Amino acid sequence: MKQKITVIKVGGKIVEEKESLDNLLDRFASIEGNRILIHGGGRSATRIAEALGIESRMVNGRRITDSDTLKVVTMVYGGLVNKNIVAGLQARNVNALGLTGADCNVIRAHKRTSEDIDWGFVGDVDSADGAMLAKLINEGIVPIMAPLTHDGNGNLLNTNADTIAAETAKALAPHFDVTLTYCFEHPGVMRNPDDPTSLIARIDSDSYKALLADGTISGGMIPKIDNAFNALEGGVSRVIITRADAIDGNSGTHIVA
Amino acid sequence: MKQKITVIKVGGKIVEEKESLDNLLDRFASIEGNRILIHGGGRSATRIAEALGIESRMVNGRRITDSDTLKVVTMVYGGLVNKNIVAGLQARNVNALGLTGADCNVIRAHKRTSEDIDWGFVGDVDSADGAMLAKLINEGIVPIMAPLTHDGNGNLLNTNADTIAAETAKALAPHFDVTLTYCFEHPGVMRNPDDPTSLIARIDSDSYKALLADGTISGGMIPKIDNAFNALEGGVSRVIITRADAIDGNSGTHIVA
Repeated sequence: MKQKITVIKVGGKIVEEKESLDNLLDRFASIEGNRILIHGGGRSATRIAEALGIESRMVNGRRITDSDTLKVVTMVYGGLVNKNIVAGLQARNVNALGLTGADCNVIRAHKRTSEDIDWGFVGDVDSADGAMLAKLINEGIVPIMAPLTHDGNGNLLNTNADTIAAETAKALAPHFDVTLTYCFEHPGVMRNPDDPTSLIARIDSDSYKALLADGTISGGMIPKIDNAFNALEGGVSRVIITRADAIDGNSGTHIVA
Repeated sequence: MKQKITVIKVGGKIVEEKESLDNLLDRFASIEGNRILIHGGGRSATRIAEALGIESRMVNGRRITDSDTLKVVTMVYGGLVNKNIVAGLQARNVNALGLTGADCNVIRAHKRTSEDIDWGFVGDVDSADGAMLAKLINEGIVPIMAPLTHDGNGNLLNTNADTIAAETAKALAPHFDVTLTYCFEHPGVMRNPDDPTSLIARIDSDSYKALLADGTISGGMIPKIDNAFNALEGGVSRVIITRADAIDGNSGTHIVA
């Protein structure tokens, strides 16, 4: 039987404020067994860019990454945010190791090409090296992954953290029984966003069809859940959508094949 | 017989300009066998700090590191400089892994205390984990170390890169036959700094005494060579002082016990 691993993705907001970061690190440290954390950091990147006089240009929530912006996200994601998480976890006796996709060549990507928009140094993932990550994890190391990849030609690339989480989870599936947990601001997928008791505890492919048909799931939630099913098809055992203060593996909405 | 390893320390100037960085990475990639690189980055830190309106205060060439300055060096050393080296080496088929002292807990330090000066978040090294580094190296990984350590309580600390190089070299000595190479602007220790043919190819403890007695070695070179002998006493096999374009292991001044 494969060992279990929990792959947790948290957005920038959680890891950029001391109190929510401390709470997250306490909870992450208390998870038993193998773990990986993937983090964002967009708010800090925007703030540092602004302080440096570099304009942040976003399209559909994604950052256009010219060479100056690439320097900012390399500093903020790979340095400031990542290393503070690593130091905070070491203080909690978690043997954290900060990684970008360039480190140990764990995530290769290519520069996004688009006819409409010049995204600059934005990367779409080609491959994640699950065997290398498994080797580190089996040494007791806990990878902390920044949303940066590389193209193998010396260029770092700015890459969406949700995508890194999904690709990492799939790459680990041959080696581990993988739970992929996405943290967001709600307790999970809700029948009624205004009613905290309306959490949908479990979605499988049949119930997903029904929830789509009756309009319970709509809008921005659809790509999230499509991504979850994509991860399940890639060998991930379960995907959980939950709040960052409920990453115990029991809370939230569990999406299964 | 122990395997050989080359521990190379390069200052900020080399790694912060594209042409000299590319040259260094070409040479570093061509070194056979096990390797570690320790880098600085002070010039970029000063430049980014200035752009952010943070004053850089130096005492004896060391940076006073208040909490804003710590953020800058964490971004610049741990992110910008380190990750660009890592991506550049991956492009040269070197399986580089960027590390601060917090990553895998490889270098512990404590905040420097001084009666005269409040250094802020400056760290003096307590211990380097040679066994963990050896484990990574034996997996074919090439550590690239930024001049940052941690105190085990969640604080990153700004730490002199020369010191990190020496402590890392000593910690690796039980596991490898270690050559510690310090790159600087001259071809090595010179009898006459103005005469490039006056390189002293080899210094041992006897010849060092003679060179001190006749005044050939003086001033700022004395602490450098004292540090080299300290590393030799700590089990390092040889220390080389050379230029960054001559890290082949043959050039420069070789200091031996």
